[in-house]
Amino acid sequence: MDAKDFRTHGHALVDWIAEYLEHSEKYPVLSRVKPGAIAAALPDHAPEQGEPFEAIMKDFERVLVPGLTHWNHPGFFAYFAITGSAPGVLADFLSAALNQQAMLWRTSPAATELEAVTLGWLRRLIGLPDAFEGVIYDTASIATMHAIVAAREAAIAGVRAKGLAGRSDVPRGRVYGSDQTHSSIDKAVIAIGLGHESLRKIPTDDRFSMRIDALADAVRQDRADGVLPIAVVPTVGTTSTTSIDPVPAIADLCAREHLWMHVDAAYGGVAAMLPSHAHVLAGVDRADSLVVNPHKWLFTPFDLSAFYCRRMDVVRAAFALTPEYLKTSEPAEVKNLMDTGIQLGRRFRSLKLWFILRSYGAEAIRAHVARHIQLAQTLASWVDAHPDFERLAPVPFSVVCFRWKPSGRSLTEPELDAANEKLIDLVNASGDTFMAHTRLRGKLSLRIAIGHIRTEERHVRRAWDLIVENAARAVTSH
Amino acid sequence: MDAKDFRTHGHALVDWIAEYLEHSEKYPVLSRVKPGAIAAALPDHAPEQGEPFEAIMKDFERVLVPGLTHWNHPGFFAYFAITGSAPGVLADFLSAALNQQAMLWRTSPAATELEAVTLGWLRRLIGLPDAFEGVIYDTASIATMHAIVAAREAAIAGVRAKGLAGRSDVPRGRVYGSDQTHSSIDKAVIAIGLGHESLRKIPTDDRFSMRIDALADAVRQDRADGVLPIAVVPTVGTTSTTSIDPVPAIADLCAREHLWMHVDAAYGGVAAMLPSHAHVLAGVDRADSLVVNPHKWLFTPFDLSAFYCRRMDVVRAAFALTPEYLKTSEPAEVKNLMDTGIQLGRRFRSLKLWFILRSYGAEAIRAHVARHIQLAQTLASWVDAHPDFERLAPVPFSVVCFRWKPSGRSLTEPELDAANEKLIDLVNASGDTFMAHTRLRGKLSLRIAIGHIRTEERHVRRAWDLIVENAARAVTSH
Repeated sequence: MDAKDFRTHGHALVDWIAEYLEHSEKYPVLSRVKPGAIAAALPDHAPEQGEPFEAIMKDFERVLVPGLTHWNHPGFFAYFAITGSAPGVLADFLSAALNQQAMLWRTSPAATELEAVTLGWLRRLIGLPDAFEGVIYDTASIATMHAIVAAREAAIAGVRAKGLAGRSDVPRGRVYGSDQTHSSIDKAVIAIGLGHESLRKIPTDDRFSMRIDALADAVRQDRADGVLPIAVVPTVGTTSTTSIDPVPAIADLCAREHLWMHVDAAYGGVAAMLPSHAHVLAGVDRADSLVVNPHKWLFTPFDLSAFYCRRMDVVRAAFALTPEYLKTSEPAEVKNLMDTGIQLGRRFRSLKLWFILRSYGAEAIRAHVARHIQLAQTLASWVDAHPDFERLAPVPFSVVCFRWKPSGRSLTEPELDAANEKLIDLVNASGDTFMAHTRLRGKLSLRIAIGHIRTEERHVRRAWDLIVENAARAVTSH
Repeated sequence: MDAKDFRTHGHALVDWIAEYLEHSEKYPVLSRVKPGAIAAALPDHAPEQGEPFEAIMKDFERVLVPGLTHWNHPGFFAYFAITGSAPGVLADFLSAALNQQAMLWRTSPAATELEAVTLGWLRRLIGLPDAFEGVIYDTASIATMHAIVAAREAAIAGVRAKGLAGRSDVPRGRVYGSDQTHSSIDKAVIAIGLGHESLRKIPTDDRFSMRIDALADAVRQDRADGVLPIAVVPTVGTTSTTSIDPVPAIADLCAREHLWMHVDAAYGGVAAMLPSHAHVLAGVDRADSLVVNPHKWLFTPFDLSAFYCRRMDVVRAAFALTPEYLKTSEPAEVKNLMDTGIQLGRRFRSLKLWFILRSYGAEAIRAHVARHIQLAQTLASWVDAHPDFERLAPVPFSVVCFRWKPSGRSLTEPELDAANEKLIDLVNASGDTFMAHTRLRGKLSLRIAIGHIRTEERHVRRAWDLIVENAARAVTSH
């Protein structure tokens, strides 16, 4: 494709995307394709001869667009609602063209240093001390795995060289989360060889926050049993209910017990930009590490996860390793991003965060986040005011968990679960709204997560109306 | 940014990128900025108020562009030369706008199924049997780590649940590579808790290929010592010299010894598309897993690494884990990509591979790869014909390793190393060429890797001329 064709197709694509970003509401949020339909509509082999760009775009629209679930739709309320904002999309386009691979400083001084600069900006916006050094990973799952590897490195002598197996001097290890902890912690302990049983899930209180007394008991019991406590992973904004673990008390315990504290603020961390929510990161200044995801609630196209660490030397001690062909002669203060992790290659991810922070400015970003929190409060007030609905968790951020529970009728818990499950399917079938579920203390819960930059009250209202309208049908058809 | 502004800035950006992709030669390949200069030119804090897009682009050009090392320059010969081709860049733009997050089939049926389709296309292009199921990861480092975790899962009973530590029934494990193995294998064994010492680097022969006799001896010796052999990682296209390990013989040994064979074909695998090079993947049909990187030699913007596995059930056994809020009711044949790895979130990476394979067609891609191999042979012939240069390795793909070693003068090895190191710096300072070095049997080697889609003979000629011209200066100034 020469420059002339690139311009032609590029300009057409800009128009397609502009239309898409503006009118994403014309699509059903949740894709309606049947499993296997997309694969069946495409050939088994790559073409031998090149095809015109227009033909590819036509197939994209015909075959793939119906198979998209529109994360960009303002009625997307499932999981965590995210936004690939316009300035971020343009910056990611530029990043793809530059094709920087920032393993070493010299392979992209711009990507290496802009990463430090933008992570410095974000750190100050959320009130984290300058002692935290930042690095960008693709996902919070990878960031968390690095945190647990660092914790293991700090806790077990010789683990980098000798590993964990066949050593009589290394007992079983333990990592602590709550019963609301994200599955990435489970995957991390499995991957790094501590084993799934090494993750102890501490019970939570009626606000779904980790019980500090139960954590202290567990650590005590483990020590008595000869198990080695390694790390505690409190969460600021758990996935089910966005509950907040008591970080200051956990920080005290970690200091006393010499445990690594890794804070999973992948979702909730961004809210600390608001004066009203700065408290959600209380105690985090004493964390060893923290993850916060700009691709969740900072309008950044997927993927960009920010990892902050007060002891990045430990991460480097675990991973730094320079083969001959990557040795360079820059001064010692030069940072090579490959030293802070498993991945050697790294995209120029900071570019999109830089464009977004500059294009919106902190004030507008705070306003959007505050608006999402306000919309969630509004929805919660509708739930609370309706006699046939029951709220199942507090709403510290922008996620509301509740269920249909009609007054004046006695349904069993299994009947309520079935009715609410059916209700979600009916609402999602509308095409206007897509929400997910969770299960809280055994009860199936509707779960509305507000976070798209173009979500307005009318979208939340539409979801609520759909829920109310369909509730009766759900129990009838059950 | 509204749709009108998006169009305005998007169109301007298309023009900027078209110009950049066409005229990347106007920039010095290797950035000339001083460490810290970029960070120093940017403010410490994010702006409170949003800024015009033009102002951000102006700073991008003023501050960041001088800090780019131009991986897109046809004179880029360092590491592995890669290409973010125009169709791939456009597709990645589209992918950023769609912002798909393909953790579950339902969260993006299109991304989930197109991944299977495009990986099927690539599999057939490189001659891999259909028994290999594919999944896309960000990097080969992550793909390899998943492979070693799967090998560990297959070799050690109960490792997912119980881990490696504090178990008298689990001996030390062993993974085998060659002394040319990529550092990602080192990082993988460190990360997953086997420990760095568990990687045994088997000596290579005079073509830098793993010695099968030495491998067999090592396995025998380890078994005798009570160490558990787990996996062998042969490489097709090592990083220093692109040497090829004897995969068929290693496959025999792995079958006999019940070891997982993971083939690192991150660089070399793509060449198997050529009838002349199909043999480089001989024996790979018996591998348990394989990684090949479209972002290396298939003109795909970074990042996209293709992982193929004949035993994906083992990968799933290691990692599948579904929290309540991710449970879905699709039929059992539906694949959820989150089950095949650590990362929960996944970008719509297959879109760019699909655009590239269709836009070029297999024939044109083969022609580009063949052309790169031919250019490397041409360079090797110039090296071989020159009395003052010595080739240090065979050239099976498109990388040439050699050094300056003047005839008729007796320089010590340290003097030769110093002169060649200096020579590289002199050549790289030209701005026309950027090459890296490696060390082979103790000798410092120049290393020219050809792989950019717009690299022509004149660029290779220019690099060679610069090397010849500067060689005398290198030893004088030494």
